[in-house]
Amino acid sequence: MIELCGPMILYGFWRSSATWRARIALGLKGCSYQYRPINLAAGEQDLDHYRAKNPMGQVPLLELTEQDGRTVRIAQSLVIAEYLDERFAGTPLLPSDRVGRAQVRQLAETINSGIQPLANTSVRAFVRENLGGDDNAWCAHWIARGLEAVESMVRATSGRFAFGDAPTLADICIVPQLYHARRFGVDLRRFPTLTAIERACQSLDPFSLTRPEFQIDAPGDQR
Amino acid sequence: MIELCGPMILYGFWRSSATWRARIALGLKGCSYQYRPINLAAGEQDLDHYRAKNPMGQVPLLELTEQDGRTVRIAQSLVIAEYLDERFAGTPLLPSDRVGRAQVRQLAETINSGIQPLANTSVRAFVRENLGGDDNAWCAHWIARGLEAVESMVRATSGRFAFGDAPTLADICIVPQLYHARRFGVDLRRFPTLTAIERACQSLDPFSLTRPEFQIDAPGDQR
Repeated sequence: MIELCGPMILYGFWRSSATWRARIALGLKGCSYQYRPINLAAGEQDLDHYRAKNPMGQVPLLELTEQDGRTVRIAQSLVIAEYLDERFAGTPLLPSDRVGRAQVRQLAETINSGIQPLANTSVRAFVRENLGGDDNAWCAHWIARGLEAVESMVRATSGRFAFGDAPTLADICIVPQLYHARRFGVDLRRFPTLTAIERACQSLDPFSLTRPEFQIDAPGDQR
Repeated sequence: MIELCGPMILYGFWRSSATWRARIALGLKGCSYQYRPINLAAGEQDLDHYRAKNPMGQVPLLELTEQDGRTVRIAQSLVIAEYLDERFAGTPLLPSDRVGRAQVRQLAETINSGIQPLANTSVRAFVRENLGGDDNAWCAHWIARGLEAVESMVRATSGRFAFGDAPTLADICIVPQLYHARRFGVDLRRFPTLTAIERACQSLDPFSLTRPEFQIDAPGDQR
């Protein structure tokens, strides 16, 4: 059933790439929401009141009211996107055929489980503090390795966007991942298909208006 | 459309928890398949002929023929499960209501992206060889941390299985993750709900007959 969006709260962090994915998905589905910053740099994700909402202590988390009045909390950006796509009208986030859906989900999941978990806040802190490693070099290594695979995969499916000529869940993951790649100094000239897709996405408001530096919790010098 | 399964090839590794997920999903959907071992311990995932099939160099990978005759390759265990669930009859891998689907996907994704990527072969090798870290302790840390969150989440949804009284995609992820946790010495007494779910799953052939030690590529002393 397709319906209008009710009031929703998105818990997130301005620089979190997974939170940005949720913002893009909400934008493509035409959903308005209230944004509640959880300061990952200050450890707010580990405070009891947030852990009670999301035991994993990660962002994003979407809190909403279902039609029967229940309060529902959904963690994990790809799960949020699938839920929004099942419930609301707006841009479809997945293709209409099952092979296309598998290809888009594979691109999204390669970023979501193959790249991003290795570069998140708690892993970086562990590499730096417990192993004495260079966590920026660590992130750059895994991001470059993963993007090589995504660049290779996306050549088989892309048109103007990652899958044909309309944005999907794959683009929702690619754009924040390239932002993160730049932050860690990864040379993006090796990924011409991905950067062309990024340029196409930047022409759409749900991508361009949700950028990290536009968020209320971004430091002033970033805005 | 629901149809009978055609010939399928599953590329995997006996001890890979993500490959085990795919075996359980294939079993629950009643699909037969040919199993082709990719020896992760010997680096076969990085050979050109396999990278040509899966640029990420990971297992599992499912190769199958679509109704129109196309050869389709799907990487990422959760994507494989969603595809099988959309295409074939057998046990539904997701609940019929959208909130239930989100809850099951959240449990699955917390394991798939929150735990397993940190304990995979290439990450363990990097921790050991490039950072001089104890990769077994590294794995135990992330598995225990993630399972704490999953145990907390699953208390809200479980019956006999992770979501009510029938197996779903969440159970498909939980059982191999507990196997992996034991391998790295994680104390599972802290997770009574998860271990009760594991016992319920072990009564079902798609879980019990797909165990790592029963695979053709398992070392003789494991079988």
